[in-house]
Amino acid sequence: MIRVAIIGASGYTGADSIRIILQHNEAELVYLTALPEECGAVEEVFPQFKGRCKLQIEPLDFGKLTGLADVALCCLPHKVSMGFVPKLLDAGLKVVDFSADYRLKDVAVYEEFYKVKHTDTANLPKAVFGLPELFREQIKGADLVANPGCYPTGALLAVAPLLKEGLIEMDSIIDNAVTGITGAGKNPSTKFHFPNMNENLFAYGIGTHRHMPEMEQIAGEIAGSPVKILFQPHAGPFDRGILSTIYCQPKGKANTEQLTKLYKDFYAEEPFVQILNSAPSVKDVAGTNYCHIFAACVKGKIVVFSAIDNLVKGASGQAIQNMNIIFGLDETLGLK
Amino acid sequence: MIRVAIIGASGYTGADSIRIILQHNEAELVYLTALPEECGAVEEVFPQFKGRCKLQIEPLDFGKLTGLADVALCCLPHKVSMGFVPKLLDAGLKVVDFSADYRLKDVAVYEEFYKVKHTDTANLPKAVFGLPELFREQIKGADLVANPGCYPTGALLAVAPLLKEGLIEMDSIIDNAVTGITGAGKNPSTKFHFPNMNENLFAYGIGTHRHMPEMEQIAGEIAGSPVKILFQPHAGPFDRGILSTIYCQPKGKANTEQLTKLYKDFYAEEPFVQILNSAPSVKDVAGTNYCHIFAACVKGKIVVFSAIDNLVKGASGQAIQNMNIIFGLDETLGLK
Amino acid sequence: MIRVAIIGASGYTGADSIRIILQHNEAELVYLTALPEECGAVEEVFPQFKGRCKLQIEPLDFGKLTGLADVALCCLPHKVSMGFVPKLLDAGLKVVDFSADYRLKDVAVYEEFYKVKHTDTANLPKAVFGLPELFREQIKGADLVANPGCYPTGALLAVAPLLKEGLIEMDSIIDNAVTGITGAGKNPSTKFHFPNMNENLFAYGIGTHRHMPEMEQIAGEIAGSPVKILFQPHAGPFDRGILSTIYCQPKGKANTEQLTKLYKDFYAEEPFVQILNSAPSVKDVAGTNYCHIFAACVKGKIVVFSAIDNLVKGASGQAIQNMNIIFGLDETLGLK
Amino acid sequence: MIRVAIIGASGYTGADSIRIILQHNEAELVYLTALPEECGAVEEVFPQFKGRCKLQIEPLDFGKLTGLADVALCCLPHKVSMGFVPKLLDAGLKVVDFSADYRLKDVAVYEEFYKVKHTDTANLPKAVFGLPELFREQIKGADLVANPGCYPTGALLAVAPLLKEGLIEMDSIIDNAVTGITGAGKNPSTKFHFPNMNENLFAYGIGTHRHMPEMEQIAGEIAGSPVKILFQPHAGPFDRGILSTIYCQPKGKANTEQLTKLYKDFYAEEPFVQILNSAPSVKDVAGTNYCHIFAACVKGKIVVFSAIDNLVKGASGQAIQNMNIIFGLDETLGLK
Repeated sequence: MIRVAIIGASGYTGADSIRIILQHNEAELVYLTALPEECGAVEEVFPQFKGRCKLQIEPLDFGKLTGLADVALCCLPHKVSMGFVPKLLDAGLKVVDFSADYRLKDVAVYEEFYKVKHTDTANLPKAVFGLPELFREQIKGADLVANPGCYPTGALLAVAPLLKEGLIEMDSIIDNAVTGITGAGKNPSTKFHFPNMNENLFAYGIGTHRHMPEMEQIAGEIAGSPVKILFQPHAGPFDRGILSTIYCQPKGKANTEQLTKLYKDFYAEEPFVQILNSAPSVKDVAGTNYCHIFAACVKGKIVVFSAIDNLVKGASGQAIQNMNIIFGLDETLGLK
Repeated sequence: MIRVAIIGASGYTGADSIRIILQHNEAELVYLTALPEECGAVEEVFPQFKGRCKLQIEPLDFGKLTGLADVALCCLPHKVSMGFVPKLLDAGLKVVDFSADYRLKDVAVYEEFYKVKHTDTANLPKAVFGLPELFREQIKGADLVANPGCYPTGALLAVAPLLKEGLIEMDSIIDNAVTGITGAGKNPSTKFHFPNMNENLFAYGIGTHRHMPEMEQIAGEIAGSPVKILFQPHAGPFDRGILSTIYCQPKGKANTEQLTKLYKDFYAEEPFVQILNSAPSVKDVAGTNYCHIFAACVKGKIVVFSAIDNLVKGASGQAIQNMNIIFGLDETLGLK
Repeated sequence: MIRVAIIGASGYTGADSIRIILQHNEAELVYLTALPEECGAVEEVFPQFKGRCKLQIEPLDFGKLTGLADVALCCLPHKVSMGFVPKLLDAGLKVVDFSADYRLKDVAVYEEFYKVKHTDTANLPKAVFGLPELFREQIKGADLVANPGCYPTGALLAVAPLLKEGLIEMDSIIDNAVTGITGAGKNPSTKFHFPNMNENLFAYGIGTHRHMPEMEQIAGEIAGSPVKILFQPHAGPFDRGILSTIYCQPKGKANTEQLTKLYKDFYAEEPFVQILNSAPSVKDVAGTNYCHIFAACVKGKIVVFSAIDNLVKGASGQAIQNMNIIFGLDETLGLK
Repeated sequence: MIRVAIIGASGYTGADSIRIILQHNEAELVYLTALPEECGAVEEVFPQFKGRCKLQIEPLDFGKLTGLADVALCCLPHKVSMGFVPKLLDAGLKVVDFSADYRLKDVAVYEEFYKVKHTDTANLPKAVFGLPELFREQIKGADLVANPGCYPTGALLAVAPLLKEGLIEMDSIIDNAVTGITGAGKNPSTKFHFPNMNENLFAYGIGTHRHMPEMEQIAGEIAGSPVKILFQPHAGPFDRGILSTIYCQPKGKANTEQLTKLYKDFYAEEPFVQILNSAPSVKDVAGTNYCHIFAACVKGKIVVFSAIDNLVKGASGQAIQNMNIIFGLDETLGLK
């Protein structure tokens, strides 16, 4: 039984991590932490767990942690996380970190986009980017996994076969994506107040979204050469899901059937990536760890559509998939 | 041309009042006010009015008001309003007040439910309850109209024929109502954060909602004897509308056809109350000043269904209907 | 490993049954059937199961069934089901039937409300009403379980403690309920076309809903004397959930604290019924087999609020809970 | 008073045309027609008009039409419309046609995309494309206006300044658009059944949408040279609105400030096109005839965002704007 601590358990990714571990046959929750003002019985913080989880969410006490847990799912926000991860590693835990703090290998890029000095450059090189479909072997032995951002997960799975095969112009990628509102976190705000967001749709983060350099870095690693991505996110009136519609310029001729075959072959062994013969829907993946993809040729471009649940394959589900891999378990445990 | 000032224009009822006056052929906006931190060009505060309204929302300056406006739509919250209304009246304006401050004739009941001392008992007796279908004659000459609460509007129109005709037990009324979320105002909160409210439905204000004494007072006036109402509100995942489902014990035998006839006769001359032959839908009245009603006999009870838009017939639309009546205009101006 | 056949697997209750069995450690899907025009690979009929279930949905062949499956979840519609259930029993299977065909013990009432002759009165007396919290002992040995209707599940769990203790007037119950739209099934219709149902809310089935006699029958069994229930359903703009707001006349004095204690004691051993200290929300139970209940005293009445997911505790989840009980398994398997 | 007939009044564009004409001071409804099976009193076909419109929707009788109406809003579907328009013109009416039948000047392109022979090539050359911001002068004297498609309206207003000024590569335009579900019309279907569409988002019409050649034709006219547009529509879970996110390759250097100035100058005199300084929201234009636009430079591309209501500026509102222009009225009548 893998003993799981969730650090920063009081937000949406904490809740989905709890939900998944409760269904996991070979892992159990042992320790849940949050800021003091967000602590309390799990069933009070999250009424959906009433009668399902008897734990308390408590302020983090590192002294308790050693020997108590095997792995930490670290759901802290960007910038905060790198203050905690070194201590979690020192306490002997494996760490799957949900923040961006260990995703960007280039400290300068991190510091430019996150406007803060990186304070844990010692552990940064050890961190493995936790996209199992592309980096499974490195994840196996890792102590520290940087769980990918939600948008990069959807985008990278969608373009990886094209990048790997060198089929597209590497500076031609446009990622037009729409997220559900759980992606904005649980703190109330004017933009996401129900009467503002309901029946609404709008773009945000124009030219400035922090997932852009993350996508470009990993896409470059996959391609073996620099990749440029214009990433434009939007917020849509639904809870869960990201639909990425990605436009690329093919190098040569391409047709939809060949693309379908390429994608099916590329992901043939992957449990959580499914290639469709038509456009995916966010509702079909909501609540699951699956990514649905369809690629088509349209008017001389390749258009790839991918759908994931931003909280599952885009966060908690992928983290637990990574945890399963680290511990040599069946990768699908808790995620069926 | 009636010159309209909106006091407290920066919230949802302010916005709907602006929207309606912009379509009104015999009224024009002349002055819009709000707290300093909520001021600015109308088209910045409310992007939906970009290019449609050139006014600024400004901090209120009573000095400006005299001679500038004929009427104030006072959209201030409960407790605040009674501090402003006397001065608006002194400045020579007619006032339609959206708050509860002038609705409850019994100061003790007001002070119990609103937990505050009433500071304008001088004007309280002058205030007319602005439900035109029942109090049109008094509204005609009024200086001060207390615009009804949203829930009371839907409930009172639904039961007025039964009360007036003495057809039901006066202590038997149960009003089970569901409101859309604009009813909660524009300030963000945890409960109404999109991912919490979307796909959700829940009861609130159990036994304590302030619209209960308002309903009972006016129902008692209509009936000519005390009326007891168990009012249970709920919040539902939509923007606009209140559906009231009201259960009463008839005194004698009743049947649905007789009820339909009674209601059609009772409201025969009313432009904004429509009696249906089947259950009303909130969507059919959303964005309009109409109230749709259907009454049926079920298992020995009378069940009345009424639907209104909480921001229009439940607030801004009814206020402008009252304004039209005060000034002797066609009651439907701006509201067609 | 319990081998499960789903008869009528192509609708929403079929899909949720598949979803739950896929997460069940001691049960597996072996046979899925539907009308010929709704057959095909599971992953084509339900794209959400792509990569998760390799079975075909096939036309039912009774010859295949014997020896292949241990239990049938019979998701056929009312009237159709009673044509199949006798043959499923003859084939040696345990049957959990989702239809109303075996719920009403009084054939005359069934025939009045369902407008059809009952054709399997032979098996009717054997059927156990599958509400485990009240009839667990009978379910244990049963060959045929009549899985309760969604509305009766929410309502009966809400009033059972009051009925059992004789605390209320037995003819005073009003059940005002709102369902999500999966309750209407998967066939498109004008009423539930997205632009009609979105942002909408309305009552239906006024005085005629077929769950009314079902509630009254079981409530009467629980109370030990006849019970009369005025049941008024509504449709609301969300996918999953039923919120029942139930009004009753207490026989003597009651207060909220006593009620809370009564309910907590009554359901102390129940894994899926949780008593709250405040109003439940449908979102907290959506996707789960849980029922959240709160009972309060308001203006001389008892008001009970209960929330369930209509497709889980109101259909597929409860069926699998019943299946677990029939086979002596941990009742929560697949439903954690 | 302009006398208006609506041909094909029973659908969503018919309803919105009725709604707008009811608020129009210088136009009145005189004749509403539909297929026999969709006829009836307006207030029965559309309960939202109960008490607001006393007309019947009747089967079309051309004999009645002459002398009765001045203009026909022809809301018939593609292919059907061209069978009626010649007779409406013969009856002496001005016609604003909502279908695609008179939008494509190249009969071969029409016949390829609509898979039908064009049967009114006589009137085709007379038809003016009804986008007032670009073709106002031609509309003024027109007998027949081809009201633009909803997607082309949003896209063409968004790119017209760039095309007119020759600032972009003419084969580089990608239009990624999301529509609300009223765009799919009022007939129920599996895709738009509430439980399928709610909480969902998906692409459709991949490479095949009929608005693509329409956009390309008009964009070419504006640019004065051929334009190629990759148009990818999506369906999102809301009623009204189209958000178009359009990517283009600038010919030279560009910056956001210059673009904002260019757009503000280009549309300075237009009542219904508003240039924002940040991303537009579909909710701000829902229910109005306004188009909100923002253009930005991002990573070497120009990205233009435009929001309209698909039923108003994308259909009925624009048709009435065109009607106002044809008759020399204030263009904003009924549309304030």
